[in-house]
Amino acid sequence: MQFLSDNAAPVHPAVWSAMLAADAADSPYDGDALSRELDAAFSNLFGCECSALWVATGTAANCIALAAMVPPHGGVVCHREAHIEMDEGGAPGFYMHGAKLMLAEGQSAKLTPETLAAVIDPIRDDVHQVQPHAVSITQASEYGCVYRSAELAAIAAFAEGRGLGLHMDGARFANAVAHLGCSPAEACAGVDALTFGFVKNGGLGAEAIVFFKPSLVDVVRYRRKRAGHLQSKGRFLAAQILAMLKDDLWLENGRAANAAAGEIAAAAADRLLHPVEANEIFLTTTAPERAALREQGFSFYDWGDDAARLVTAWNADAGHVSALAKAIRAL
Amino acid sequence: MQFLSDNAAPVHPAVWSAMLAADAADSPYDGDALSRELDAAFSNLFGCECSALWVATGTAANCIALAAMVPPHGGVVCHREAHIEMDEGGAPGFYMHGAKLMLAEGQSAKLTPETLAAVIDPIRDDVHQVQPHAVSITQASEYGCVYRSAELAAIAAFAEGRGLGLHMDGARFANAVAHLGCSPAEACAGVDALTFGFVKNGGLGAEAIVFFKPSLVDVVRYRRKRAGHLQSKGRFLAAQILAMLKDDLWLENGRAANAAAGEIAAAAADRLLHPVEANEIFLTTTAPERAALREQGFSFYDWGDDAARLVTAWNADAGHVSALAKAIRAL
Amino acid sequence: MQFLSDNAAPVHPAVWSAMLAADAADSPYDGDALSRELDAAFSNLFGCECSALWVATGTAANCIALAAMVPPHGGVVCHREAHIEMDEGGAPGFYMHGAKLMLAEGQSAKLTPETLAAVIDPIRDDVHQVQPHAVSITQASEYGCVYRSAELAAIAAFAEGRGLGLHMDGARFANAVAHLGCSPAEACAGVDALTFGFVKNGGLGAEAIVFFKPSLVDVVRYRRKRAGHLQSKGRFLAAQILAMLKDDLWLENGRAANAAAGEIAAAAADRLLHPVEANEIFLTTTAPERAALREQGFSFYDWGDDAARLVTAWNADAGHVSALAKAIRAL
Amino acid sequence: MQFLSDNAAPVHPAVWSAMLAADAADSPYDGDALSRELDAAFSNLFGCECSALWVATGTAANCIALAAMVPPHGGVVCHREAHIEMDEGGAPGFYMHGAKLMLAEGQSAKLTPETLAAVIDPIRDDVHQVQPHAVSITQASEYGCVYRSAELAAIAAFAEGRGLGLHMDGARFANAVAHLGCSPAEACAGVDALTFGFVKNGGLGAEAIVFFKPSLVDVVRYRRKRAGHLQSKGRFLAAQILAMLKDDLWLENGRAANAAAGEIAAAAADRLLHPVEANEIFLTTTAPERAALREQGFSFYDWGDDAARLVTAWNADAGHVSALAKAIRAL
Repeated sequence: MQFLSDNAAPVHPAVWSAMLAADAADSPYDGDALSRELDAAFSNLFGCECSALWVATGTAANCIALAAMVPPHGGVVCHREAHIEMDEGGAPGFYMHGAKLMLAEGQSAKLTPETLAAVIDPIRDDVHQVQPHAVSITQASEYGCVYRSAELAAIAAFAEGRGLGLHMDGARFANAVAHLGCSPAEACAGVDALTFGFVKNGGLGAEAIVFFKPSLVDVVRYRRKRAGHLQSKGRFLAAQILAMLKDDLWLENGRAANAAAGEIAAAAADRLLHPVEANEIFLTTTAPERAALREQGFSFYDWGDDAARLVTAWNADAGHVSALAKAIRAL
Repeated sequence: MQFLSDNAAPVHPAVWSAMLAADAADSPYDGDALSRELDAAFSNLFGCECSALWVATGTAANCIALAAMVPPHGGVVCHREAHIEMDEGGAPGFYMHGAKLMLAEGQSAKLTPETLAAVIDPIRDDVHQVQPHAVSITQASEYGCVYRSAELAAIAAFAEGRGLGLHMDGARFANAVAHLGCSPAEACAGVDALTFGFVKNGGLGAEAIVFFKPSLVDVVRYRRKRAGHLQSKGRFLAAQILAMLKDDLWLENGRAANAAAGEIAAAAADRLLHPVEANEIFLTTTAPERAALREQGFSFYDWGDDAARLVTAWNADAGHVSALAKAIRAL
Repeated sequence: MQFLSDNAAPVHPAVWSAMLAADAADSPYDGDALSRELDAAFSNLFGCECSALWVATGTAANCIALAAMVPPHGGVVCHREAHIEMDEGGAPGFYMHGAKLMLAEGQSAKLTPETLAAVIDPIRDDVHQVQPHAVSITQASEYGCVYRSAELAAIAAFAEGRGLGLHMDGARFANAVAHLGCSPAEACAGVDALTFGFVKNGGLGAEAIVFFKPSLVDVVRYRRKRAGHLQSKGRFLAAQILAMLKDDLWLENGRAANAAAGEIAAAAADRLLHPVEANEIFLTTTAPERAALREQGFSFYDWGDDAARLVTAWNADAGHVSALAKAIRAL
Repeated sequence: MQFLSDNAAPVHPAVWSAMLAADAADSPYDGDALSRELDAAFSNLFGCECSALWVATGTAANCIALAAMVPPHGGVVCHREAHIEMDEGGAPGFYMHGAKLMLAEGQSAKLTPETLAAVIDPIRDDVHQVQPHAVSITQASEYGCVYRSAELAAIAAFAEGRGLGLHMDGARFANAVAHLGCSPAEACAGVDALTFGFVKNGGLGAEAIVFFKPSLVDVVRYRRKRAGHLQSKGRFLAAQILAMLKDDLWLENGRAANAAAGEIAAAAADRLLHPVEANEIFLTTTAPERAALREQGFSFYDWGDDAARLVTAWNADAGHVSALAKAIRAL
């Protein structure tokens, strides 16, 4: 009973079908018919003109987007526990040619104008100090928490007021939208570039970088190629994304994962380190408790010495979820 | 009737099957059972201990390998028309942090010790000039020509004598081995790192970087992640590669493409710009001749004003190939 | 009455004399007679074989040294308030090609094995997290405090135990040695590469990078040129350094600056934010107090809202220093 | 009798005087009174508003300027024998984060619209090929030849027509202006950024980067610091430059060097590999001839097997020059 990661879940059948349907030869790279549909598909989804490019991984999507917004001598403010800081093996430094991540605080890995200002205000406006050029936030956050519309608006206003670009790591954007019950546009209002994640949500190997500021995309096309991320059979990446967008499969999958997480959270209300608003549950547990759960067949990661991280996916098994909820209650 | 590129051909059914069979969740990234088989599979194929990593594209494979062999202040000697120089959008400069490509001459995009020496010998051994650290050759070359065993041995001896690493871009390694009729080990003897291509040969989105010098691989693991090329569902890349290695499907596909190219070449013996030793045919043609071929339904690229490039793939249609051969004869 | 910075002080007469004496043409770059004396001069000073290169600035010295010790995918642990983090405009990211500064705590900008471990221990040994490759410490620290022999030995042992290189930013190394009263070798025991500062201590535009691990220096020669730091009239940089080493002028100048700082500190014992062990004094003061001092003709920087930073230099004027001490007492 | 390099000549007495006069403490970095005069001094010299920054070396000046004009994924077209390609140790790749030098032909290391077009026209306008963003020319060229006004205008028009920035490496700009007898503005008309060299012309360690497109300079200030080229006692670099500009000392020095070269060239008219228009003479000579000259006390570099390179400087000794001219005639 797998609660290790949504990263490793199976691929959704509709995604497989779309890939198989794309088998016939078409133009290589992103000249194929499917890749050429992406701009329209995302413009339609978000209700505004936007450009979208596929890449294979969230790390590539985040870093290619950031590199289009930040010069090598600049910086990006992000949360101290942001994925780009903690889990991307230094990819931001590589893609941005040495630009700096500037680390801010915030409850449940969410930034606020106040925590941003606490990082930015002390920076002297001179050449001896790296100047911030962008803010990066994660929706849902690394602790499975979601920015509300007002929180997002406050950050976007702050960024705009300081002349900073705004990037959103939406590796779990589907989970965030599912939780908020709002439109996708509302869940990323004010953002210049969004990493729209599919791999954790039933995809195989395709994420979209969505640009709401179209001027960024031309440079990004060169940067994607230069990073070896322009796959020659790109039609298979486009096919995955289009299959996920069709009939809002992405949202349905996000809801399914959230529902499973919610059921587990309900069984562990007094143990939660963070509100469960997406598909991750951080649970205060002792080592013996975790051993007990593992003995019953549940797989998950330790989170330090006193907690566990459990993740649900689009294909959460109802029986496994109930069993886990029950097991937690019984601890 | 498609002779544009092997890059865009369909995926081989055995590759699809292997991918579908890998659907069940496994450890993410390269911790899954299939990825862990790669070292053994390639060691077996090459008859020596080697390490192999998957990445999605040939550009990434080439550049990650080169970056492990060349410091930022160094250089790589390659052919003036090498793919890394002409068609990778500056990826070598990105991955190697500004290291330099040093361009050498050579018939049909093949290097020789003499053409290498012509680049290297004039370089003063001082800090004002970039020093070469590696040589990169392409097997089969960008003009579809193949290094013989003796040619390869001469280059390897030269590289070793000068203290240079040796990298092989094997985007069409299968076609080279098929042409040579030798073992895979013979076709890359003396090489430190090989980009073993599958995408042009029936794969979907997976190439292998094979290291014959195991000390390189540890750094490369970090570099792959740092470039956003460590896919979380890496089992699907490993599955593709293992399916291609199984029963030498890679070689069978290479032979099929070569055979088709050979049939076309036989029909055009007096028009060939380069010997046809792999799956590419460069054909002297006038513009009206090319128009005539296109009118008959054949797709291909112009190669300058006076030639055409035709590429065959693993799935070459016998009828299309015969038709093309006939049409060329009739010009 | 200038207490703003040692960075802007005049050049020592002996340095001027040495530069003027070096005017006659000699080999360009570092082929001149003076540059070729540096290895011997520093080997003699430190009592062990070492290699030394000049560069114009401390930022260049620090970053070129670090880049020789840390690969682009690695990291350097330094203090949160280290000069390389706070005041070098992102130069470490540039020179190390995106490698990461990992920020540790510590009293008065000094690191300890414990604060280093607090940063390093949580780093998982996998490719998703940047791995540390070196430690950088500052002697004297950014708050004018000095590592004792035992403190240094503990850090060196920690670094060696973890397989990390050890770099010392010695922009104020002279002040540290003057305070410690030990040999220069003792003040940097265990260090692999030392930035030996002269510009803040009576030089014009020359610092030395001293390598105690000679294998680093060959790469560094290329890196210095590649950074545009190999000056063609390098003899004038060598001349400065040799003049400073002659008869321990560097130490004499350090002592003079320290003595001046000590006199001021003695007048302000209850106001000191940090022990005064070098030539910097951080003084708790109200805004009106600082205004009063400025009205009496003293120049210095504010240090936040509640403190001032005062810096003495090799040429500290005895009258100015006494006047300042008196003025502080009178506050 | 030194004809090796202008790079190693003594410093002009007026430069020494200006440096000594700048000894008193002033604001550090480029906040001092002298550094703040540079914009006006160059605006006055060129008769238009421009911004100027000092750096210590020509390599730094060239590469910092180019990095402001070319993104990491772009390219710069320069001559195959340009200093940035041949003699800067890969600095362009470092400063431009991997951008590419694209090598063009041209008599005596001078480019023309035709040789530029020969490089640029074949580049496909797609992401697989690096796109040019700037042109860099050298005035006087690496073979001591000078762009006439009409030649320069043709290149500037070409660059503008293709949307390319135009950089001039003016390491020997003084020699070029001296030869042309025109205004400094005419000798670099159409250029966006000029490296104005002083070190080869009587300076100690200061070159100016002059920006005729002021929007570039803000980024460059950050880039200079980030490269460790913002010296804390920058007043001594500004002093050098201002001393050279005063009463056109730079031009007088350039004329002196040119006159000496002219005298030598006149003695060797039938041996010249290139017209002598600046202070470099490339002389066809046999090895025994070169040995004979050296035996008479003349120092110079071989230029391949069949030639010598002789360089004169601002301080050329009339007796040495006459003696060399005579010796060459006597060969």
